[in-house]
Amino acid sequence: MPTPDVLEAFPTPSDSAFIIEHVVDEFTSVCPVTGHPDFGVITVRFEPRPAQAGGVCVELKSLKLYMQSFRNEGIYYEAVTNRIRDDLARLMSPTWLLVRSEWRGRGGIRSIIRATHGIVPPAWAS
Amino acid sequence: MPTPDVLEAFPTPSDSAFIIEHVVDEFTSVCPVTGHPDFGVITVRFEPRPAQAGGVCVELKSLKLYMQSFRNEGIYYEAVTNRIRDDLARLMSPTWLLVRSEWRGRGGIRSIIRATHGIVPPAWAS
Amino acid sequence: MPTPDVLEAFPTPSDSAFIIEHVVDEFTSVCPVTGHPDFGVITVRFEPRPAQAGGVCVELKSLKLYMQSFRNEGIYYEAVTNRIRDDLARLMSPTWLLVRSEWRGRGGIRSIIRATHGIVPPAWAS
Amino acid sequence: MPTPDVLEAFPTPSDSAFIIEHVVDEFTSVCPVTGHPDFGVITVRFEPRPAQAGGVCVELKSLKLYMQSFRNEGIYYEAVTNRIRDDLARLMSPTWLLVRSEWRGRGGIRSIIRATHGIVPPAWAS
Amino acid sequence: MPTPDVLEAFPTPSDSAFIIEHVVDEFTSVCPVTGHPDFGVITVRFEPRPAQAGGVCVELKSLKLYMQSFRNEGIYYEAVTNRIRDDLARLMSPTWLLVRSEWRGRGGIRSIIRATHGIVPPAWAS
Amino acid sequence: MPTPDVLEAFPTPSDSAFIIEHVVDEFTSVCPVTGHPDFGVITVRFEPRPAQAGGVCVELKSLKLYMQSFRNEGIYYEAVTNRIRDDLARLMSPTWLLVRSEWRGRGGIRSIIRATHGIVPPAWAS
Amino acid sequence: MPTPDVLEAFPTPSDSAFIIEHVVDEFTSVCPVTGHPDFGVITVRFEPRPAQAGGVCVELKSLKLYMQSFRNEGIYYEAVTNRIRDDLARLMSPTWLLVRSEWRGRGGIRSIIRATHGIVPPAWAS
Amino acid sequence: MPTPDVLEAFPTPSDSAFIIEHVVDEFTSVCPVTGHPDFGVITVRFEPRPAQAGGVCVELKSLKLYMQSFRNEGIYYEAVTNRIRDDLARLMSPTWLLVRSEWRGRGGIRSIIRATHGIVPPAWAS
Amino acid sequence: MPTPDVLEAFPTPSDSAFIIEHVVDEFTSVCPVTGHPDFGVITVRFEPRPAQAGGVCVELKSLKLYMQSFRNEGIYYEAVTNRIRDDLARLMSPTWLLVRSEWRGRGGIRSIIRATHGIVPPAWAS
Amino acid sequence: MPTPDVLEAFPTPSDSAFIIEHVVDEFTSVCPVTGHPDFGVITVRFEPRPAQAGGVCVELKSLKLYMQSFRNEGIYYEAVTNRIRDDLARLMSPTWLLVRSEWRGRGGIRSIIRATHGIVPPAWAS
Repeated sequence: MPTPDVLEAFPTPSDSAFIIEHVVDEFTSVCPVTGHPDFGVITVRFEPRPAQAGGVCVELKSLKLYMQSFRNEGIYYEAVTNRIRDDLARLMSPTWLLVRSEWRGRGGIRSIIRATHGIVPPAWAS
Repeated sequence: MPTPDVLEAFPTPSDSAFIIEHVVDEFTSVCPVTGHPDFGVITVRFEPRPAQAGGVCVELKSLKLYMQSFRNEGIYYEAVTNRIRDDLARLMSPTWLLVRSEWRGRGGIRSIIRATHGIVPPAWAS
Repeated sequence: MPTPDVLEAFPTPSDSAFIIEHVVDEFTSVCPVTGHPDFGVITVRFEPRPAQAGGVCVELKSLKLYMQSFRNEGIYYEAVTNRIRDDLARLMSPTWLLVRSEWRGRGGIRSIIRATHGIVPPAWAS
Repeated sequence: MPTPDVLEAFPTPSDSAFIIEHVVDEFTSVCPVTGHPDFGVITVRFEPRPAQAGGVCVELKSLKLYMQSFRNEGIYYEAVTNRIRDDLARLMSPTWLLVRSEWRGRGGIRSIIRATHGIVPPAWAS
Repeated sequence: MPTPDVLEAFPTPSDSAFIIEHVVDEFTSVCPVTGHPDFGVITVRFEPRPAQAGGVCVELKSLKLYMQSFRNEGIYYEAVTNRIRDDLARLMSPTWLLVRSEWRGRGGIRSIIRATHGIVPPAWAS
Repeated sequence: MPTPDVLEAFPTPSDSAFIIEHVVDEFTSVCPVTGHPDFGVITVRFEPRPAQAGGVCVELKSLKLYMQSFRNEGIYYEAVTNRIRDDLARLMSPTWLLVRSEWRGRGGIRSIIRATHGIVPPAWAS
Repeated sequence: MPTPDVLEAFPTPSDSAFIIEHVVDEFTSVCPVTGHPDFGVITVRFEPRPAQAGGVCVELKSLKLYMQSFRNEGIYYEAVTNRIRDDLARLMSPTWLLVRSEWRGRGGIRSIIRATHGIVPPAWAS
Repeated sequence: MPTPDVLEAFPTPSDSAFIIEHVVDEFTSVCPVTGHPDFGVITVRFEPRPAQAGGVCVELKSLKLYMQSFRNEGIYYEAVTNRIRDDLARLMSPTWLLVRSEWRGRGGIRSIIRATHGIVPPAWAS
Repeated sequence: MPTPDVLEAFPTPSDSAFIIEHVVDEFTSVCPVTGHPDFGVITVRFEPRPAQAGGVCVELKSLKLYMQSFRNEGIYYEAVTNRIRDDLARLMSPTWLLVRSEWRGRGGIRSIIRATHGIVPPAWAS
Repeated sequence: MPTPDVLEAFPTPSDSAFIIEHVVDEFTSVCPVTGHPDFGVITVRFEPRPAQAGGVCVELKSLKLYMQSFRNEGIYYEAVTNRIRDDLARLMSPTWLLVRSEWRGRGGIRSIIRATHGIVPPAWAS
């Protein structure tokens, strides 16, 4: 089950604004209705707060373990997306954050879900 | 370890504004958490100050040596990106500068980091 | 853990020779060394024996459940491929059978494994 | 339900050998296990017997109606492929005939089935 | 209606063997069953007999007019293909001749027909 | 008008067998029937005889001038192809020679002509 | 420096023949002449001996560590390729083995090296 | 002018057969007729003799300098290709060697030349 | 000859604005100067008026018959495009309408004609 | 030599504004300096004046003949482009007109020239 406790952060290395994007190509969870596995790609994009404001970045290996913790969780696409947004927003309090999930087809339907925190600049919102 | 001292610059050849882009296809450093090597592509894009304002451009061979100096450095993606931005901004004081790092996947996660100096025109910010 | 018992077969619908190919795009198991998840694509290609010889075909939904049963199994790529080949050969005794597994990268290494049963015609061996 | 009776044929226009290929891009039937719709592409490729031997060709509009008659039929991929092969072989007694069905994914599994009648020359067997 | 009389030929310019291919991208005729227009691409490929054996080649403008004469003809795909093969074989008595017609979809079905005269070398039969 | 006299040759630089291919992307001549210009791509591929057997190669600038000499000539596609084959075979007496002409569409018809001298190895005949 | 000692093997899971391919996308070593880093892709393809003959397969994580051990080694392309072939052949005594290295350009020259052990079937030799 | 003296070789690292391919993307020489620069891609592919037979490999940096020595040489395409073949064959006495040169267009004509030494296996002759 | 009378319309199903695009891939008419057939692709793009304003949409089968009615009409490209624009504007009085015709080459010239009704938003004008 | 007299026009079929684009894929003229042929693609794009203002369109066959009249003219790229612009502007007095010429490379340089008449809207100016 999802384990936000494994998430770790390190101090952002700069007072200047910069933008980080992590693309998780191998996400899998379980459909809460049918019990069958779901497969998707999760994109996490954010701008950490400046270093002097206590800004932090999520550490990559801990992010991997966090993402793997959904492996046997029965959870809706929409809940996955919002849950990740909430856990990462709580960890980092970033200036802004976008979580996008794109799912392989089920019954001939493909889905894309986007959830945000703060004000995502239009150029980074797609 | 990163050696900004090897970086050299030469006077910009013009008072007109122009834009320079160097793409480093063979960047490698070491993950500070696992000790495994990381591989990425670094894009450096900038507009030098005009010649009459003392503008300079980074010399290409020195840039190559500088990039190679990260080879055995244990350093986060985010720090690499900000470090290069800082070292090049200090060397050149350009009108604006964008450093983008795109990393090969680790544990199924690919990352892209962007750090800027000055005001990057929207057309050059991607 | 892999459950060949879920595999079901139905009588092949013809005495004529024909060839069946199933491509499993969403296979996942676990690395027995690191405990991290592995992701791959499994191709199963075979020619059932004729109906009058008691030929059978694997039923698709049972194949899906069988493939899902590897989800939390710690198992090498090579063993996955041979195991599936063995379980399907035992179920169907097909005229010939090819199992190919293609794996997403791990530590910068991508792998492809092929295992066969009977004599696979060259045109179908790639 | 499949209605081979709608199939019509017309006398082949030549004593010389020639080869005909029809690709049905919009085939749909129903999974007999789950009741969900299946979607696929059916390729029918054959050489009619010569005119002087009474050779005939399937008429295109009747082929379309025949293919549409599978729309609400619960039937396995393998049976669809063999059934079409059998119905068309009965209608035309062609020199040779290949029926290939390629199916959109179901539960992350894509399938391709091939059934033949007579001896299909290797150049036309793929 | 098809007018083979417009076809003209000129003496082949050589005693050496050579191969000619004409691709008619804008062929149209009418479906004899529905009365709707059909659109296709016709490929004519042949080797003329040597000059000293009285070999001739079809003249290109006359071929264009001949192809246009099918414009309002109600005729099956199979008959178009064999008719063109017959008319061109009669005009030229070539060493060998291949006529291939590829038709845009009708009711979701695309068709390809091939008719030959003489022995087409395998390298030119596709 | 075609001027084979401009063709020049130089002694082949080797006793070893080797293969030369020249692709003329900008060939143009005139249709003898309509008087309109034709445009095509001419490929010349050959193996010169060995130096000790007096082998020669066509000189490239002279080949260009020769090709340009067709610019205002009224001549059929088939005759162009055979004429070039004959003129180059006479100049060089090569071990083998292939001339292929591919023509832009005229009246919706595209054409490809191939003429050969000597025995062209299958690997080079396409 | 290259450390074949880190290589580990596990017993092959089958008596049937099967084929394994590992593609190392992130290989790097150092040019022994200039001291600059080299980057390449290493493909390792082999058939292990059968289980009853004591066949073994290289373990993937140990292969990764072995490949990483070339990181600061000054070594020619040709020596890298043969060295890997030798170390893996000694570890596994496979039925056959192919090692192919493809190198990014140096001074405008790109290189590909192939080394083999045993008799590689033509279908797997490219 | 071409300086085969700069070419250096080092002992081949193995008694096993292996195949080396160097692709020189930035070759330039001068047309002996017009004095204009020519640009091409040179592929050098060979199998060195075994180490115990005194086999050697061309060293990459010396190959680069050798290729650069053609920069201001007035020389035909055919002579370039045979010259490189001869110089490398003399340096290495390889089991077999293929040199292929592909030239950017001159006056609308593109050229490809191939020269060989020893017996090049068909799989490597293209 | 063009028969706008066959065009039929049905009430638009919504008061909200929406955009409809029909692409006619198989349009053919006749050149009024040469009498030869022309082939093109016609794109019809429009926004119907709202339902409460009496908006209507062209019915698809009637559009097909209307397009087929140009088959034997001698008419300029420009007139085809304006005629279709006029007939559809009269039928539907849409908020805006774009008709684009793209014609296969004639004598080496390809043509594209665009005619509009009302104010086409820039995003839909290409 | 260029013959604007062959250009013919016909009354524009509409009072509404519309846009016409003709792409001449087979343009050729002669270099005034070297005497060698040049090859290019000419795009003619314009908006005719309304019918009630006496607007006219260039007739396509006359445009073809006009373009062919440059075939043996020694003329610079820049002059070709401006000459066509002038001749067509004089013929049609269009609301606006763009003539773009794109030339195949000469000596490794490719050129694109644009000339306009009236005010070309930005969306059509590229």
